Amino acid sequence: MRPIQAVDTVSFDGTEVTMLDQTLLPVQQVRLTIRDTPQMHEAIRSLRVRGAPAIGVAAAFGLWLGVRDLPDDLPRDEAEARLRGEQTFLAGARPTAVNLTWALERCAAEALRAPGGTAALKQAALDAAIRLRANEEATTRQIGEHGAGLLMGLSGVLTHCNAGSAATVGLGTALAPIYVAAERGHLLRVFADETRPLLQGARITAWELQEAGVPVTVITDSMAAVVMRQGKVGAVIVGCDRVAANGDVANKIGTYGVALLARAHGLPFYVAGPTSTIDLATPDGDHIEIEQRAPHEVTHHGGVPMAPEGVDVFNPAFDVTPAEYVSAIITEKGVVYPPYTQGLKDVKA
Amino acid sequence: MRPIQAVDTVSFDGTEVTMLDQTLLPVQQVRLTIRDTPQMHEAIRSLRVRGAPAIGVAAAFGLWLGVRDLPDDLPRDEAEARLRGEQTFLAGARPTAVNLTWALERCAAEALRAPGGTAALKQAALDAAIRLRANEEATTRQIGEHGAGLLMGLSGVLTHCNAGSAATVGLGTALAPIYVAAERGHLLRVFADETRPLLQGARITAWELQEAGVPVTVITDSMAAVVMRQGKVGAVIVGCDRVAANGDVANKIGTYGVALLARAHGLPFYVAGPTSTIDLATPDGDHIEIEQRAPHEVTHHGGVPMAPEGVDVFNPAFDVTPAEYVSAIITEKGVVYPPYTQGLKDVKA
Repeated sequence: MRPIQAVDTVSFDGTEVTMLDQTLLPVQQVRLTIRDTPQMHEAIRSLRVRGAPAIGVAAAFGLWLGVRDLPDDLPRDEAEARLRGEQTFLAGARPTAVNLTWALERCAAEALRAPGGTAALKQAALDAAIRLRANEEATTRQIGEHGAGLLMGLSGVLTHCNAGSAATVGLGTALAPIYVAAERGHLLRVFADETRPLLQGARITAWELQEAGVPVTVITDSMAAVVMRQGKVGAVIVGCDRVAANGDVANKIGTYGVALLARAHGLPFYVAGPTSTIDLATPDGDHIEIEQRAPHEVTHHGGVPMAPEGVDVFNPAFDVTPAEYVSAIITEKGVVYPPYTQGLKDVKA
Repeated sequence: MRPIQAVDTVSFDGTEVTMLDQTLLPVQQVRLTIRDTPQMHEAIRSLRVRGAPAIGVAAAFGLWLGVRDLPDDLPRDEAEARLRGEQTFLAGARPTAVNLTWALERCAAEALRAPGGTAALKQAALDAAIRLRANEEATTRQIGEHGAGLLMGLSGVLTHCNAGSAATVGLGTALAPIYVAAERGHLLRVFADETRPLLQGARITAWELQEAGVPVTVITDSMAAVVMRQGKVGAVIVGCDRVAANGDVANKIGTYGVALLARAHGLPFYVAGPTSTIDLATPDGDHIEIEQRAPHEVTHHGGVPMAPEGVDVFNPAFDVTPAEYVSAIITEKGVVYPPYTQGLKDVKA
């Protein structure tokens, strides 16, 4: 099989920062030019770009956009204050993804370290974003290489949400091992949970797998248990928004349920993510803030109401899967097995 | 609390058979007049009327509509042949619900037993449908009375799909104990799985509970596990489309997964249904035919595509929950506990 062509989620063409508007997938493929931090904040908040690694890269370019138009002769300390202000603003776009704060802090620090005046700080902020993007791309391929071996004997896997190429720059996290397996000649069928409420599985995972020539079957989230019981999949593989020091995993709402179902059917439950997603400062899942989103995401689709007006809705964006249900965590530095406390420390070292 | 006002799903006003078109809920409340068997077949097939008990009553009136316009002087054997033909036609509208074939056979047998000519047969078919409807209404109240005791100490329950008033004539099956508890002054909050793909939970369960003044929170199916983990519910209660002789339960797709999640959280998993849903001729769940429905139910909503064109879809309408995950089966004749083989035989006797 020919090499997989990654989705171009966020990139810099030498002049402008552009991104694929993922809210319009799969019906339309529209590329947005992002010109300032409010626009980038809105794009992250509204999930035009989503997936922890892609959000990190988007925010890094956002940070640069926040200082791009400063006059080169502005006093350096004013430019630095502006950079820190933009960093704080962008970090607030989504509270759960640790990559967002990690990427912003890394790029801000690199910019602040650059010797010279405001012009040098601006250039350093851009260089940092470009370097982050390149690193993230390499990281996804390494995740794929490390994870592919776990899937080689299987005919099918189940995934939840989109932790694919569209969630990163590069091959994705959860889907990277599937793509690398495909490149090695082993095509797996992917059962894609549609992933309510925002349908990233049906809209994005199914789309990118179809584009890449990997067989995919869309199911509603409620069908995962039957797919497992019927032996259609030999493993579950998902991405992650944050991994706590003890191996508890925050990921898209529904992941915890899928992990319990995998356990009930004796299937391995794999989590894939860059080491930047591992947050050793968070001891366990109880310390992860879970973003609550608006009721209309559940009650409306395409403007059409699907529930009675004014009904109460519970809409957490993420859930936490306790480490005991996680069979392995696949990172760019290798596969970490339980007990996680030491293994996660080691890959972060 | 005042007595609960049941949804008028299917009824006969002395002249016409009418039904609430449930495909339009909760946005519109439209009542259809059903004039012949093709129209009734379409209404059942398209889920304008749904829920095993309501389908049974609808089909019973459909059977009468199939002979209503026969000339009174038609030879009796020709009327009988017509009746049997209409019975077969209507029974094919949905393969999984045992009530459909049960109700049709019961009413056809009553009509065929009536002495006299074609006019007598027609009258007997109508009388049978009216009697069935009255019995089903009484049955739902008895289910409620028997089940309410199981819920009295709890602050919340989770349900999947709609096994409420809108699925029956009367108070429903799974929701009947909740309504009776409310009448007795104990209001439970109901967490309603939205129930993809057709959203009977969000559209119908939430609507009828709201109309009845019972607190309800809509969640996506993927949130059930978190709702359980957070202790928001003390039990799960669902309806059923068919119960096999060993206690295996066929119900809306997603039920099996919810049962596994209930087990993982140590919560009781209750199934409510009339004894007509118990099919002693089916030894276990492996012998229950599962209806596969069209891909567009999963890939489209309100005409808007939510998945890439031509993508493969798996869309079983039902799943089977093995008896080992069922804590009790609530019928109009009482609550049946495991082991089910004898208990189900007893309530069917």
